[in-house]
Amino acid sequence: MTESAALPPKTRRRRSRQDGATPRRKVNYRNLRNPFPPMDIFSADRIAAMHEAALEVLETLGLKVLLPEARVIYRGGGAIVDESTEMVRIGRDMVFAALESAPRSIPMSGGAPTRDIKLEIGNLVFQPGAGAPHATDLERGRRPGTERDFRELTKLTQHFDVFHMVPPLIEPQDVPMNLRHYATMDAQLTLSDKVPFIFSRGTPQVLECFEMLRDFRGLSDDAFHDGAHSYTIINTNSPRQIDVPMAQGIIDFARGGQVSIITPFTLMGAMAPITVAGAITLSHAEALAAITLAQLARPGAPVCYGTFTSNVDMKSGAPAFGTPEHFKASLAAGQLARMLGLPWRCASGSAANLSDVQAANETQFGIWGCLLAGATVVIHSAGWLEGGLTVSYEKLITDVEVLQMVAELCADTGADASDIALEALAEVQPGGHFFGVAHTRARYKTEFYEPLVSDLSNFGTWTERGAVDTTTRATGIWKNILEHGAGPDVDLSRAEALRNYIEKRTKEGGALPES
Amino acid sequence: MTESAALPPKTRRRRSRQDGATPRRKVNYRNLRNPFPPMDIFSADRIAAMHEAALEVLETLGLKVLLPEARVIYRGGGAIVDESTEMVRIGRDMVFAALESAPRSIPMSGGAPTRDIKLEIGNLVFQPGAGAPHATDLERGRRPGTERDFRELTKLTQHFDVFHMVPPLIEPQDVPMNLRHYATMDAQLTLSDKVPFIFSRGTPQVLECFEMLRDFRGLSDDAFHDGAHSYTIINTNSPRQIDVPMAQGIIDFARGGQVSIITPFTLMGAMAPITVAGAITLSHAEALAAITLAQLARPGAPVCYGTFTSNVDMKSGAPAFGTPEHFKASLAAGQLARMLGLPWRCASGSAANLSDVQAANETQFGIWGCLLAGATVVIHSAGWLEGGLTVSYEKLITDVEVLQMVAELCADTGADASDIALEALAEVQPGGHFFGVAHTRARYKTEFYEPLVSDLSNFGTWTERGAVDTTTRATGIWKNILEHGAGPDVDLSRAEALRNYIEKRTKEGGALPES
Repeated sequence: MTESAALPPKTRRRRSRQDGATPRRKVNYRNLRNPFPPMDIFSADRIAAMHEAALEVLETLGLKVLLPEARVIYRGGGAIVDESTEMVRIGRDMVFAALESAPRSIPMSGGAPTRDIKLEIGNLVFQPGAGAPHATDLERGRRPGTERDFRELTKLTQHFDVFHMVPPLIEPQDVPMNLRHYATMDAQLTLSDKVPFIFSRGTPQVLECFEMLRDFRGLSDDAFHDGAHSYTIINTNSPRQIDVPMAQGIIDFARGGQVSIITPFTLMGAMAPITVAGAITLSHAEALAAITLAQLARPGAPVCYGTFTSNVDMKSGAPAFGTPEHFKASLAAGQLARMLGLPWRCASGSAANLSDVQAANETQFGIWGCLLAGATVVIHSAGWLEGGLTVSYEKLITDVEVLQMVAELCADTGADASDIALEALAEVQPGGHFFGVAHTRARYKTEFYEPLVSDLSNFGTWTERGAVDTTTRATGIWKNILEHGAGPDVDLSRAEALRNYIEKRTKEGGALPES
Repeated sequence: MTESAALPPKTRRRRSRQDGATPRRKVNYRNLRNPFPPMDIFSADRIAAMHEAALEVLETLGLKVLLPEARVIYRGGGAIVDESTEMVRIGRDMVFAALESAPRSIPMSGGAPTRDIKLEIGNLVFQPGAGAPHATDLERGRRPGTERDFRELTKLTQHFDVFHMVPPLIEPQDVPMNLRHYATMDAQLTLSDKVPFIFSRGTPQVLECFEMLRDFRGLSDDAFHDGAHSYTIINTNSPRQIDVPMAQGIIDFARGGQVSIITPFTLMGAMAPITVAGAITLSHAEALAAITLAQLARPGAPVCYGTFTSNVDMKSGAPAFGTPEHFKASLAAGQLARMLGLPWRCASGSAANLSDVQAANETQFGIWGCLLAGATVVIHSAGWLEGGLTVSYEKLITDVEVLQMVAELCADTGADASDIALEALAEVQPGGHFFGVAHTRARYKTEFYEPLVSDLSNFGTWTERGAVDTTTRATGIWKNILEHGAGPDVDLSRAEALRNYIEKRTKEGGALPES
């Protein structure tokens, strides 16, 4: 039995409200449109050449597909399959048909209408860092991730409106693999009403997760399959290989009507050519192959195009993130995604080993790469350290500051006559001050973004208060959220049913991952 | 006598070269074009409305101009001047004429042809943080700036090609005000060959600086005045006031053919309306007034449009930088600058009190605002803390990392057949590695940006090496540059002449600032 299943389910509760005495700034961070002009890194003819090269890779070199059922599906769609080598060669007509049937816009339902999102080019969706084996914070240090960490980080993800989906934040390594999906589903469903993540670790786990989610949302089987309520990340095993659980995931999510975010993870110079153009060509080919499998499994299946392409440090072989090459690869992927017209995911990241200036600079640089690439979903946008080996509680908070500032830029800015404020300009004499004028007094409580963790006090005041640095201040913030933060509205009976399901399945032995 | 004048002049020397055994990545950081698509924050009609409002401010409200000579020049150009109130009202016909005669492109000469720059829309020029009373580093702590700090920071500015101009980094407070311009000119000319800065602290100091620069560059008086070799920053005394030294600076620099970078410093809610639209309208009006004065003083005078508009923390009144409002103001100023067609300056910044995550995030956020605003000159792009009260040696290094990564994005990226690398894609089997293939081996030493201060090693290695954070690593870097960094080629006889000039003028009492 997992820790979470042993806890009493949360009762239905409401977010505490301000008493209304002080007007609060209200900016919607929940449904963002990307206001940044998309940036091209390559000319249109070079993008066409990369697309052509990717099609050629699929036709002439092919991919190794380890799952027999996937090879059957590919063959049924017209691919040339060599069972002895497990190689699948995919004609461009198959790819074109898949791109034809893949939806351009994917509505996704959360646990409350205000948490619904839509994946389409032009929208902007953020997730914190995901998939790390370790968690770290200034109080408890770096450690293997636990269920407690997963639950705490899920609460933090829930707290900030600028996160729109729950990712697999860290691996709860204290939960056995056959039960881990129960722990992560319990946390995501009872501690958040945002769109949850399901790992593609084989059909048995995936179908159980679908079942838990369907019942928790109170949906019929048909209603569940007719809408997207969850997503998975499909990492191809680059170069040119799709392993068993990933292929199963593509098929299961397609048939279940749930979203596959297709993400070849192609580090330049390691799993991919050392050049941006070469690595992105490989990534594109693999993404097209996976999209084709999804569409063959169920035409119209919701799939997100994606890439995660960065470079390695050629001295050590270590992955690097938030680099110029990472940025360029994001831009190139964005051009290909716009050519396809599909929603797509991109990623930020950091190779830093602690939440410091390097970590901040890399993550923000990576985020700007995603933003200017026009990414729909930006993964690893907060908290991710060590190239994904650790999620930092403090860095999650300090990166949220950046994301909230980006979200502020998504909102309209006023420039009507009252904003231009000729009257105020006339009222204040040369060399005077605007602090006291009516125009300022009417707006000063709500005009500016209020920082989450930034300290704007002067050096003297800051020193008197103990000269606390930003990362240390962030500790107080996450602790306060964990202690006082309101969770989502939870239906008591459904939480009870989820707990019973998990207890029953746990007694029956759970479900092991497949490989 | 200043410390610098007492030092022996540097002898002519050459930058030490690599022995050529290891190919080094060569990317030109010296002449950057901005590759980022300019972003609009307001619609064209709102920008037109703000321009119209600014013209109305100049016509109906006017500015207070404290320098009698400036009022004479304005009156000569057709302005309505009230000598009793020192108010000057400027008709739009005068503004339009000034915008007509202001150059769209300004070539500026450094001390070597490779340091020449051109100020025009589309080019990208960076400066480190400027004008701070304090300096700080991890070894010596925060202290009032000294001549030693000025010289050291000038050396650091010289070292990095991504800095294109030398700014007034910190105030050398240990040098008396009547001699300070000697100390700063000596440092800029003998320790750097980049375009130097001259403070507009009254005509006597300015003309002496012109003289020192002219002679150090070996120019005739005519040749000096016919080209731009230096620049000043003109801060209006917002709202709607131009004080004595600033007005003198505008006139002196115009007549001397040197560049005035016109920068109203308009903090929303303090010296300007609380709204982005209002603050930028005021900034625009003041910039137009100053540009008009420069063009009246000498038609065709080289002037840079500019803005430095951010918000204040409405709880404390403290200035904030690198905020969403700062970013939006940069975008609005960029739209106005593009409408005028003039080169223009913008600024990043940070309100943080030490070089930490907040400082990194604010400065980078501000830089992206400048980049997407299409700024020509980006001031305070490295090292600036406490809203400009301190320049940090370590932050200068860590911010250079960001600027160099941005500069990498200014370079072309290959996507020809050899970059797409179909052969390498065919060579590596599914699930294999690209480390060893010929395509990787031919490129691995030069393909990726090499970090300056970022540590890409894994957690274990990094821990073994002492778990040093980025800011601490930066200390070693600036110390190494100060110890081993090569300076510019310096002509011995000119340095000697400069020293003699400074000694003579020092004995004569120097020149006090005017106010």
